[in-house]
Amino acid sequence: GYLEKDAIRGNDTFVTFDEIMKQAVQNEVDFVLLGGDLFHDNKPSRKTMHCCMEVMRKYCMGDRPIVFEILSDQAVNFSHSKFPWVNYLDSNLNISIPVFSVHGNHDDPTGADGLCAIDLLSCAGLINHFGRSRSVEKLEISPVLLKKGNTRIALYGIGSIPDERLYRMFINNQVTMLRPREDEDGWFNLFVIHQNRSKHGATNYIPEQFLDDFLDLVVWGHEHECKIAPVRNEQQLFYVTQPGSSVITSLSPGEAVKKHIGLLRVKGKKMNLQKIPLQTVRQFFIQDVTLSEHPDLFSPEQPNVMLKVMAFCQEKVEEMLEEAERQRLGNSLTPEKPLIRLRVDYSGGFEAFNTMRFSQKFVDQVANPKEILHFIRHREAKDNIKAILSRPTSEVLQLRVEDLVKEYFQKAEKNVQLSLLTEQGMGKAVQEFVDKEEKDAIEELIKYQLEKTQRFLRERRVEATEEKIDEEVKGRAFKEDLFIISKLLHYLQTSYLGVDSGS
Amino acid sequence: GYLEKDAIRGNDTFVTFDEIMKQAVQNEVDFVLLGGDLFHDNKPSRKTMHCCMEVMRKYCMGDRPIVFEILSDQAVNFSHSKFPWVNYLDSNLNISIPVFSVHGNHDDPTGADGLCAIDLLSCAGLINHFGRSRSVEKLEISPVLLKKGNTRIALYGIGSIPDERLYRMFINNQVTMLRPREDEDGWFNLFVIHQNRSKHGATNYIPEQFLDDFLDLVVWGHEHECKIAPVRNEQQLFYVTQPGSSVITSLSPGEAVKKHIGLLRVKGKKMNLQKIPLQTVRQFFIQDVTLSEHPDLFSPEQPNVMLKVMAFCQEKVEEMLEEAERQRLGNSLTPEKPLIRLRVDYSGGFEAFNTMRFSQKFVDQVANPKEILHFIRHREAKDNIKAILSRPTSEVLQLRVEDLVKEYFQKAEKNVQLSLLTEQGMGKAVQEFVDKEEKDAIEELIKYQLEKTQRFLRERRVEATEEKIDEEVKGRAFKEDLFIISKLLHYLQTSYLGVDSGS
Repeated sequence: GYLEKDAIRGNDTFVTFDEIMKQAVQNEVDFVLLGGDLFHDNKPSRKTMHCCMEVMRKYCMGDRPIVFEILSDQAVNFSHSKFPWVNYLDSNLNISIPVFSVHGNHDDPTGADGLCAIDLLSCAGLINHFGRSRSVEKLEISPVLLKKGNTRIALYGIGSIPDERLYRMFINNQVTMLRPREDEDGWFNLFVIHQNRSKHGATNYIPEQFLDDFLDLVVWGHEHECKIAPVRNEQQLFYVTQPGSSVITSLSPGEAVKKHIGLLRVKGKKMNLQKIPLQTVRQFFIQDVTLSEHPDLFSPEQPNVMLKVMAFCQEKVEEMLEEAERQRLGNSLTPEKPLIRLRVDYSGGFEAFNTMRFSQKFVDQVANPKEILHFIRHREAKDNIKAILSRPTSEVLQLRVEDLVKEYFQKAEKNVQLSLLTEQGMGKAVQEFVDKEEKDAIEELIKYQLEKTQRFLRERRVEATEEKIDEEVKGRAFKEDLFIISKLLHYLQTSYLGVDSGS
Repeated sequence: GYLEKDAIRGNDTFVTFDEIMKQAVQNEVDFVLLGGDLFHDNKPSRKTMHCCMEVMRKYCMGDRPIVFEILSDQAVNFSHSKFPWVNYLDSNLNISIPVFSVHGNHDDPTGADGLCAIDLLSCAGLINHFGRSRSVEKLEISPVLLKKGNTRIALYGIGSIPDERLYRMFINNQVTMLRPREDEDGWFNLFVIHQNRSKHGATNYIPEQFLDDFLDLVVWGHEHECKIAPVRNEQQLFYVTQPGSSVITSLSPGEAVKKHIGLLRVKGKKMNLQKIPLQTVRQFFIQDVTLSEHPDLFSPEQPNVMLKVMAFCQEKVEEMLEEAERQRLGNSLTPEKPLIRLRVDYSGGFEAFNTMRFSQKFVDQVANPKEILHFIRHREAKDNIKAILSRPTSEVLQLRVEDLVKEYFQKAEKNVQLSLLTEQGMGKAVQEFVDKEEKDAIEELIKYQLEKTQRFLRERRVEATEEKIDEEVKGRAFKEDLFIISKLLHYLQTSYLGVDSGS
């Protein structure tokens, strides 16, 4: 459902999901394994949920027999489900391809019921959601044990957990991978994880070294760059495959790598992973130019330098478009309009120009006409932006929201301070509001603080009847806070607006 | 999912839906027929959707054979579905009880894709959504033709349509019920409709007389009062059964009628409808008192009259509680705390009192402690309120939102006027926002108006480049409107807050 409202790219994710599942059928796979983030939004739209169910019912149900067994206790593997067994063993469902998935950070469980988007698919019998833990301090991972012929696979999974928390659990030795008692070494150990793989901070990622060395293959979700060819970790002696996202989200170099899915064959302890390129993924070309590196073409002092730079940029984009056209030749499944990004380093006295007219030139050829050009001023700045853009989009937004909330209260006059809520609490609630569309997050926070304040006042035996407390607290503070929140939301709206119309 | 967040009543709808489907299994029904509004919200929460799917998968799937046939063209009956056939004939689904449903006004199709909440259930293979039309001017209803033994049922349905529109279609002779060619009179004709049955305005309901007289039984959804015993329409010579809502929503007399489902038996052209009382529905008692009718007990001039009135009201509530207790005896399925409403007519110089302390007394015995008392001043007023309360809740809210938006702009100073939007457009967008949680409604409206304004300016050949128009329009008007909207939303929030804490 990424960008589902975009007039050009709106169906990209559905088309590619269809292609992936069709590949599963054509290759007669035993099962499909997903690394999380089947959905982009925590609360997917009705359209997205409907499209997803449609594809799964179309490709995962049917008469093709399933020839592998499950040896583990399904009630343990799927203990959080209302139907705690693998879908293909449900006599009411004729499943031909079971799908196993952990949840990602985009579609993780929220709310009092701890439900996530893929739990709806699980309840409908379309997916097997595994790798879910109840504890936030300790993980004991019981693998799903699969057997086909003489090959046995122990499938481990951890659904997305905040990186710092999982990092701490590993450090404190609180992550245990349970192993089958019988013939421990005879299993092919497959592990699915959905965390930061690249280091975003001291403890804001999971080092491969943390993972048990008895593993054979780690499927690493979350990261968007397709690095599907298994890479051997020489310390731990296992392989890591990183399928990457199925569609391009951020316009960063990592996403320009050709998208693939992997067809994994396992026999005994041996494996082979065949790369299958995806045909329906929109092409994406990215290129960097540094204006100061072309003193022969233009200098900042030149008259009309901006027109020259513009023509130069246009030429570069046209080159990319020609290359896209060339590569797309004969492939009818690839969308016509590619994604194009030209990053222009204009350090050294050059000026950025208004991109609107430039965009207009490519509106019929490019899928992202408004975002083709990206001006950056310094090498350093570029690297920073690179680092931010290579993160999943939601994290960038998170940073922004937190910053904005902080900024708002720093700038605010003294009388615009919250009566009940702390800025930190507010920041978190707004973040949740933005990330997860948890409409109740703010309200719940206020209620919680309200009760806390009431208890506090009562304990202090304030000279007031309960009703007075109620009236006072509710009438004044509650409304004041609501007012400030509405102002804050307005501030965020306009700030976002500024961001959106800018680039 | 009605009131799903209420600490006491939150699970009521799920529990009763479970009871209903359990009854279907126990009575070995051929199918379940729903009259719309399976969901209270157009966009049900994840929890509600999950609960609903769970119940349906639990009770509607299994090995019990289905012994009736479908004779009509399913591709026509279910043409809007991605899987246009009845679920029990899908070889991948082991359905034991097919559920047929039209959509109601609460869960009607919205958005560009025209999907509604039950379409998700339909896509998951759990429900058969019928009675859906593409045209807004003309209806041609192809019945689902069912056959069991020698009995044949023609099942007609119309999913919810705005009453005025459907009224107009009937008046203009644009509603056609197609009939099977063969042995036209041998069919039992069953029709499901989800519209106002009681007159809310000249054309704001559907008179029974509009319906074809070849019908045998009309199942009338939408109305909340349980009038399940079929009533013969002596003009049209068909029967009408009105099951009513499964749980109590508004605290009005209609909802105090005991809730039932109907077990319909049809043989040839004969039918029998057995009333089955629902055991899990929370009890609801409502009583009216008119203070001026008790001159022996109190008069407005009396000192401490308020305390006396309060004691009198307390006595009445206690009587109702005792009656509830008596009726609940031995029925372990009925929730412990009943719903209680005492409507107090305080005309004739009496004063209403603060209900908070009164509520406090019943907080452990009543499911709606904050809403027990309802003060009204005049007979006339009471009747008005009655009329409003007997409408489904969403309509009351609609009225309120529209009024509030209007009020807001009437009160607003001159400089707080929208630059791009009309008040009417704004009112509609906010209403949609509140009713359907169409988060994009407001944004889409603004975009639309923005484009309109741009076109307008261009056509007038205003002396400005396009860029300037963009800047001007976006920069000023857009932001101004957003600001006003944020203020408006704040106003609505606090107004609602006032309403909520008031009664």
